[in-house]
Amino acid sequence: MKTTGGSDAMKRRAGESAAEAVDDGDVVGLGTGSTAAHAIRAIGARVDAGLDVRGVATSFASRERALEAGIPLVDLDEVTGPDAAGIDVAVDGADQVAVGGENSSDGGADRVAGDLDLIKGGGGAHAREKLVDSAAERFVVVADPSKEAAVLDRAVPVEVLPSARGVVAEAVRAAGGEATLRRAERKDGPVVTDNGNLLLDCAFGEIPEPEALSGTLAGTPGVLEHGLFVGLADEVHVGTAEGVRILEA
Amino acid sequence: MKTTGGSDAMKRRAGESAAEAVDDGDVVGLGTGSTAAHAIRAIGARVDAGLDVRGVATSFASRERALEAGIPLVDLDEVTGPDAAGIDVAVDGADQVAVGGENSSDGGADRVAGDLDLIKGGGGAHAREKLVDSAAERFVVVADPSKEAAVLDRAVPVEVLPSARGVVAEAVRAAGGEATLRRAERKDGPVVTDNGNLLLDCAFGEIPEPEALSGTLAGTPGVLEHGLFVGLADEVHVGTAEGVRILEA
Repeated sequence: MKTTGGSDAMKRRAGESAAEAVDDGDVVGLGTGSTAAHAIRAIGARVDAGLDVRGVATSFASRERALEAGIPLVDLDEVTGPDAAGIDVAVDGADQVAVGGENSSDGGADRVAGDLDLIKGGGGAHAREKLVDSAAERFVVVADPSKEAAVLDRAVPVEVLPSARGVVAEAVRAAGGEATLRRAERKDGPVVTDNGNLLLDCAFGEIPEPEALSGTLAGTPGVLEHGLFVGLADEVHVGTAEGVRILEA
Repeated sequence: MKTTGGSDAMKRRAGESAAEAVDDGDVVGLGTGSTAAHAIRAIGARVDAGLDVRGVATSFASRERALEAGIPLVDLDEVTGPDAAGIDVAVDGADQVAVGGENSSDGGADRVAGDLDLIKGGGGAHAREKLVDSAAERFVVVADPSKEAAVLDRAVPVEVLPSARGVVAEAVRAAGGEATLRRAERKDGPVVTDNGNLLLDCAFGEIPEPEALSGTLAGTPGVLEHGLFVGLADEVHVGTAEGVRILEA
């Protein structure tokens, strides 16, 4: 995974701020990506200091980082289901964050409220990330200023069944986008996800109505999961040069 | 797969009737299940007699039947995509068929028009079936009278990522249903699909608004595909004791 934009110090500030959202006894969803990695390290430091939490990894990579950080892990299906405890809080990164709807800033307090729509999936883990993030009582996004946009306009990663590549590319074109199969760099052929599927990066240009596109993509046969996260994030912690700015849904 | 209801003669009549929908030069989607198997055999007989078609299998099982029947096969991704030929017609079975909306029968002609909503997935192949059936220019369903219902009310098979079992069961309960993990009979543990996932059979009782439920299930993280086929079928060929009754969308 490439680390695009944003200094490491900004990412660390965002990760450390989000780690404070975790309470003793929590089940915590652990996100993928370079900024979420800082949150995992910060949560691990709190575990060293006595915090009692159990983590749920969103990917192979986040599982490895959690083990390194000394966070005890449980499987997602141990804590979810009609009668299970559930996930208290998830901390995860994003490739792009847009604050939609009516934005309001209460002057100087570095807090902004509005719909928080995300594009995720640069790391190809968005199916399991959406599963964990949407199951969490509270979903905290970590980001840096390079991820912020007025309107989402990055290509949307879409995980598809291997045989569904053409059918989904056709549906994406019908919806006004252009799908490109993501190629691997360390093996021949395409990137294969942790679930054994392929990734189409689907460029739509600006996405003024992410909720509508989200419904279209979700309803397309062959699509396992797409990278639009609409109405899921509760807050975004943006690490900046000076500190952390918090956006709230 | 169990063969539920409907005599073999009825299924054969439906399959043979649907096989007539195939034209020379067509790319044909080949469905899964006992009634679709009759259509595959009937198409194979026409190939023996000189019909030039290429088949696209919807499952491991339908691929085997097509090979037995002597139908040349192509992969789905050879014929789909923005610039590809596409699928001309798909012939597939259903576990339940409901004629919704305004039904009109033009007296005695054994033809009925209305929305044709289906439940599929008893064979666990509905993800790839929906991919092929929805990509086809014309989708012909084969059935027998035991599959017809005024309102869909069978459990809806939902294919889910292995780790998504609990999260999806929770979402199904929130949508008014009850999810049961499908257990295997010839191996320990659950049925694993051709895509390596699990199946939840989700009982909702009567489903008066299949389109709404379809959208809810499609938008649930962890769901690969569900067995509600809404607005996809163009016609249903119902084999009866006397002949074939055709329902049109």
